[in-house]
Amino acid sequence: MDLARRIAARGSEFLLFALTPPRVTVGAERAQEIADVTQKRLAALDLDGLVLYDIDDESDRNPDERPFPFLPTLDPAVFRSQHLTGWRTPVVVYRSVGKYDEAELRAWLETQDADHALTVFVGASSRDKQSATSLVRAQRLWADLRPELPLGGVAIPERHTRRGDEHLRLIAKQEAGCSFFVTQVVYDVNAAKNLVSDYRYECAERGLEPVPIVFTFSVCGSLKTLEFLGWLGVDVPRWIHNDLRHADDTLQASYEHSVGVARDLIEYCRRIGVPFGINVESVSIRRAEIEASVELATALGRELRRV
Amino acid sequence: MDLARRIAARGSEFLLFALTPPRVTVGAERAQEIADVTQKRLAALDLDGLVLYDIDDESDRNPDERPFPFLPTLDPAVFRSQHLTGWRTPVVVYRSVGKYDEAELRAWLETQDADHALTVFVGASSRDKQSATSLVRAQRLWADLRPELPLGGVAIPERHTRRGDEHLRLIAKQEAGCSFFVTQVVYDVNAAKNLVSDYRYECAERGLEPVPIVFTFSVCGSLKTLEFLGWLGVDVPRWIHNDLRHADDTLQASYEHSVGVARDLIEYCRRIGVPFGINVESVSIRRAEIEASVELATALGRELRRV
Repeated sequence: MDLARRIAARGSEFLLFALTPPRVTVGAERAQEIADVTQKRLAALDLDGLVLYDIDDESDRNPDERPFPFLPTLDPAVFRSQHLTGWRTPVVVYRSVGKYDEAELRAWLETQDADHALTVFVGASSRDKQSATSLVRAQRLWADLRPELPLGGVAIPERHTRRGDEHLRLIAKQEAGCSFFVTQVVYDVNAAKNLVSDYRYECAERGLEPVPIVFTFSVCGSLKTLEFLGWLGVDVPRWIHNDLRHADDTLQASYEHSVGVARDLIEYCRRIGVPFGINVESVSIRRAEIEASVELATALGRELRRV
Repeated sequence: MDLARRIAARGSEFLLFALTPPRVTVGAERAQEIADVTQKRLAALDLDGLVLYDIDDESDRNPDERPFPFLPTLDPAVFRSQHLTGWRTPVVVYRSVGKYDEAELRAWLETQDADHALTVFVGASSRDKQSATSLVRAQRLWADLRPELPLGGVAIPERHTRRGDEHLRLIAKQEAGCSFFVTQVVYDVNAAKNLVSDYRYECAERGLEPVPIVFTFSVCGSLKTLEFLGWLGVDVPRWIHNDLRHADDTLQASYEHSVGVARDLIEYCRRIGVPFGINVESVSIRRAEIEASVELATALGRELRRV
């Protein structure tokens, strides 16, 4: 069964792989080379879907200096339609809705093929940000134009740690049409479990069926990447931070941590009956990190009960 | 090798069991019955030591109503010397030092047999509390009078979560003579790992050898006990709180959580090379909870690599 149908059926245990499109400066020829290499690299993975992120500056979310400079990337919708033409699984195309005006969003929504495309709408990264379209407005456009196109939302366990109401946000998004959620990178397993748990019991209380939550994992090859995760709002527990800082091989240590956290979450979601997916993201341009991401997806795929 | 020597040698993987003495109101005969039943119940456990808590009111630490009333208990030193006369392992006798004036502490220290007794000094539960003897003063008395009597300190992972400096407190206590630490009940495995990790790397930086950290576990048979843990300052992660609240059998669910947390910590301490012990506390007077504590100690004893 394909990803859209599995999600609609509140299915579980699916495997995704997430990429950022190439930088806008690379040109069409190089973008195609990147697309070809990527498709070849991921071919053996038996993925249920590919995720394409829509990178936004986000420098408004954090007054501290961004550890890596912001480099605009190709529109993931364009990268998919023009370069990933040979890719066979469904693709989850992110839309940072604040970047697009209503006409752009409308045009994009109208041209999507609901059998092969899913989308995740991401709202503005801070309240102060000027955005062309708000998340709520984008959700209404979707409901009016393409309610059959599977719509996902972001789930942020760290926000649950700070405010304790992320499960209510998930339910509000679900009521607005979201049929799945994708987390940011998970390093703090307790924060993720706290969110899933509160979400599950709130759903039970309201007579709602939980929708799949896709947990995102990545490898981290350097302390600078670790610092960038912190800048992005990812909570890395002290002990994991210390482990990575003192590891002979940061990449290998982060790989092992991700496998440990994923196993813990998989076992937990099975036990409390919340459908889930696993998403491995590869956002680095360093070859060793990309290869380790593919290995991580292979390893996590083996943890899943797949048909 | 007995407990004192193992601790002095920075040994690891030892098993303790902790009790509160009977209430002062029970009378000598009933206290003896309790001591006899307890010794019989624990005989099969192959413990390295018994811990006797010194209960203090602590209502100054928290303005909220205490879920269970404070009922003064026998002095653990008295309970040990008068009632636990047949007990064969060393005993770790807690001293809430603020309850005793210097003459009392001095007299007690002078009569202890360093082959069979260890102690843990606990400071006042809040800064505002009037205390007969401060922790620092008690440590000095110990250093002057009985430095060969193994002295432990308390380790509070939750304090590390709030302030981030508990590892420095441990090192200060170690420099004041502490040769082991005992935590309060652990439900938040990340908080415990964060503390152990920061402690381990701070020791390495200062050229100190880490001393054993004894992690305390317990079962929790009711939501009221869970509430009491919160009152005492124990962080119970939301997801565990939810699990216990919705469990058909709270006691069994808490037993399984404790085994899971303990396994995780044991594996972690072995990996990063911090010596540790396991302490199972039984502070309830309900038979089912006492029996589940003994089972928990049996199960955790099997996890340890013991000679």
